[in-house]
Amino acid sequence: MSILETIYLDHAAATPVADHVVTAMLPYLSDIFYNPSSQYAPAVQVRREYEEAKQQLAQSFGAKGDELIITAGATESINLAFHSTFGHVVTTAIEHPAVLECAKQRDHTLVQPNDKGRVSVDDIVSVIRPDTQLVSVALANNELGTLQPIRKITQAIDAIREERRLAANQNPLYVHCDGSQGFGQVDVNVARLGTDFLTLNSGKMYGPKQVGLLWAKKHISIHPIIVGGGQERGLRSGTENVSGAIGFSAAATWSANHQSAEADRLKKLRDMLQQRITSGVPESVVLGDQKHRLPGHLSISFPGIDAERLVFMLERQGIYIATGSACSANKNTASHVLTAIGLDDTIISGSIRLTLGKRTTEQSVERASADIITAVKSEYARMKKV
Amino acid sequence: MSILETIYLDHAAATPVADHVVTAMLPYLSDIFYNPSSQYAPAVQVRREYEEAKQQLAQSFGAKGDELIITAGATESINLAFHSTFGHVVTTAIEHPAVLECAKQRDHTLVQPNDKGRVSVDDIVSVIRPDTQLVSVALANNELGTLQPIRKITQAIDAIREERRLAANQNPLYVHCDGSQGFGQVDVNVARLGTDFLTLNSGKMYGPKQVGLLWAKKHISIHPIIVGGGQERGLRSGTENVSGAIGFSAAATWSANHQSAEADRLKKLRDMLQQRITSGVPESVVLGDQKHRLPGHLSISFPGIDAERLVFMLERQGIYIATGSACSANKNTASHVLTAIGLDDTIISGSIRLTLGKRTTEQSVERASADIITAVKSEYARMKKV
Repeated sequence: MSILETIYLDHAAATPVADHVVTAMLPYLSDIFYNPSSQYAPAVQVRREYEEAKQQLAQSFGAKGDELIITAGATESINLAFHSTFGHVVTTAIEHPAVLECAKQRDHTLVQPNDKGRVSVDDIVSVIRPDTQLVSVALANNELGTLQPIRKITQAIDAIREERRLAANQNPLYVHCDGSQGFGQVDVNVARLGTDFLTLNSGKMYGPKQVGLLWAKKHISIHPIIVGGGQERGLRSGTENVSGAIGFSAAATWSANHQSAEADRLKKLRDMLQQRITSGVPESVVLGDQKHRLPGHLSISFPGIDAERLVFMLERQGIYIATGSACSANKNTASHVLTAIGLDDTIISGSIRLTLGKRTTEQSVERASADIITAVKSEYARMKKV
Repeated sequence: MSILETIYLDHAAATPVADHVVTAMLPYLSDIFYNPSSQYAPAVQVRREYEEAKQQLAQSFGAKGDELIITAGATESINLAFHSTFGHVVTTAIEHPAVLECAKQRDHTLVQPNDKGRVSVDDIVSVIRPDTQLVSVALANNELGTLQPIRKITQAIDAIREERRLAANQNPLYVHCDGSQGFGQVDVNVARLGTDFLTLNSGKMYGPKQVGLLWAKKHISIHPIIVGGGQERGLRSGTENVSGAIGFSAAATWSANHQSAEADRLKKLRDMLQQRITSGVPESVVLGDQKHRLPGHLSISFPGIDAERLVFMLERQGIYIATGSACSANKNTASHVLTAIGLDDTIISGSIRLTLGKRTTEQSVERASADIITAVKSEYARMKKV
């Protein structure tokens, strides 16, 4: 076997840190390493650059720097949003484990999506109770790529808030959106989305891992999870992650600036990938909502095939793909997302997730689709013999 | 003014990431960036390397990799240790704000140190109640450098545990030690210290910022603060900080291997610094416990002087020093540590903290001490004129 260039099709699980991001971060490790709380000029300058990075980061989704809290990733951000509200929670059955685990810790209702993984605004509205304080819906599902109608949800919530005001119900009602999976592929702007909280994850947008943010509207009281020295306006203590915030900011700015062009490019490549595979393998079933879907996302199943075997067969060709969500450390349970949308076991166990990214080219799509078709066909042939 | 080489004497606030640590981390940003939970071989390899890094990190303080949890820094580790225990807490009045803020959230007793910042084992024992579950004492105070008698504390606690066993008191009693300020300068080994929890901070030992660990004895139940995908054995969710853990491990291994030689070197330099300054400025008062002190630490006061002015005067010479703790984002209050040891205001406001590190040389100590003496003398002269 000749040495093959690897083809990475698992951008929903992790993205490489972009070269320009590494370049932006490096000086803040060894040279400009000062504690932003120190008093001498170079440390004060680090404080300024940290705040500027936050400001620029905020601008990438239409917010202000003093409205966001830098965290150690989306999971912490989600936990912090939940920790800042009380009472009943409404979320969906296909959320990321971070949301589901937070919801489990209190009174909550899970809304079921349709068979494409899309939730209905009416279904959400119908389960909101007078004591509901939080509605949490991810912008895009990490397994299916299905986009949720966030703007319509926040408009419906606005109407409920108005009803509460008239009924003198003083419970606040907030919408939290985890935008980790959509940023850079679809428009993410807090004014246009209309949410009260937004979570973003640097590690999913070519920035460093273990850096995230929680944005919250200014009037919302954040109840800190981690207390101490009072950094991040007292809302999240610990010496600031200067290089991380600088890298996150550079990554988010690039992603926001290139979102529209990158969405077109990824959609074209994804459609080509889908067309080739579905033509090559007539048994293919495309999963998720093909109209409301991340442009770089293809979830597809080959009923009866063992997708894990496909992962290993393709890995030998230097092609890296996923089966279920890679966000969970527990790999031995069937995907809660695919189960929730009512797929039968043969479709679930035969499903793969292909997520495209910055390095994906037409050539890589050509080779990947050909190799996927070959692998799936050989599996079907093997099964017929058994 | 000629271009001066800068002299950094604030290693207690932040340390530069060592070159060998940056080298170890870099591949895990752009090339080996895979999510350790993914299934293909390179991701499985990342998982293996992550676990090996944790194993090596644990060995640097005499523990095992599966006993520690990687966190986003010492502050989170401290919060996690507190969150994993219930009931009454005993700690000291001079702890880091992370410990004090955690203690404030529940029933607690603060033990007062002596005028050198050292706490007595008897004072701790005397305030332990039948419902006390946690004793938290930092290895070394970050403002004074004073070392605490951790081993003697844990021996005394062992005796109390035995009494509880005989009295059928089933409340657990744990000792948490924040070793952030001592690692690499004094021996830090959990078997020799005898603690139940240990917090360490990568950002204080030439590793990356926003990386820390909580070590806990195996039988202790950790109650996670951050829930989600179940990483770190379900105790701290969020995609693993692979490059951060690799960097932390490289930094800790280096620090542990060089601890003894580095302690000797730093002590010699610190003693030289202290001797020169106290000779040059007869008004000098050395703070903290000169017998039980971090080798690279000098807290010293020039009564009547405004230490903040000294910081700015020395900054112009390229010399960076601290007044109080730089860990707190709130700089406008008098140091709680210096207040707690009963110093009067003229000593507190005239106190500086000089903390030496890897880059400190005899030449830098010579120049720094000369410049500090000049600055202090000119301030005293100015005050006499007024």
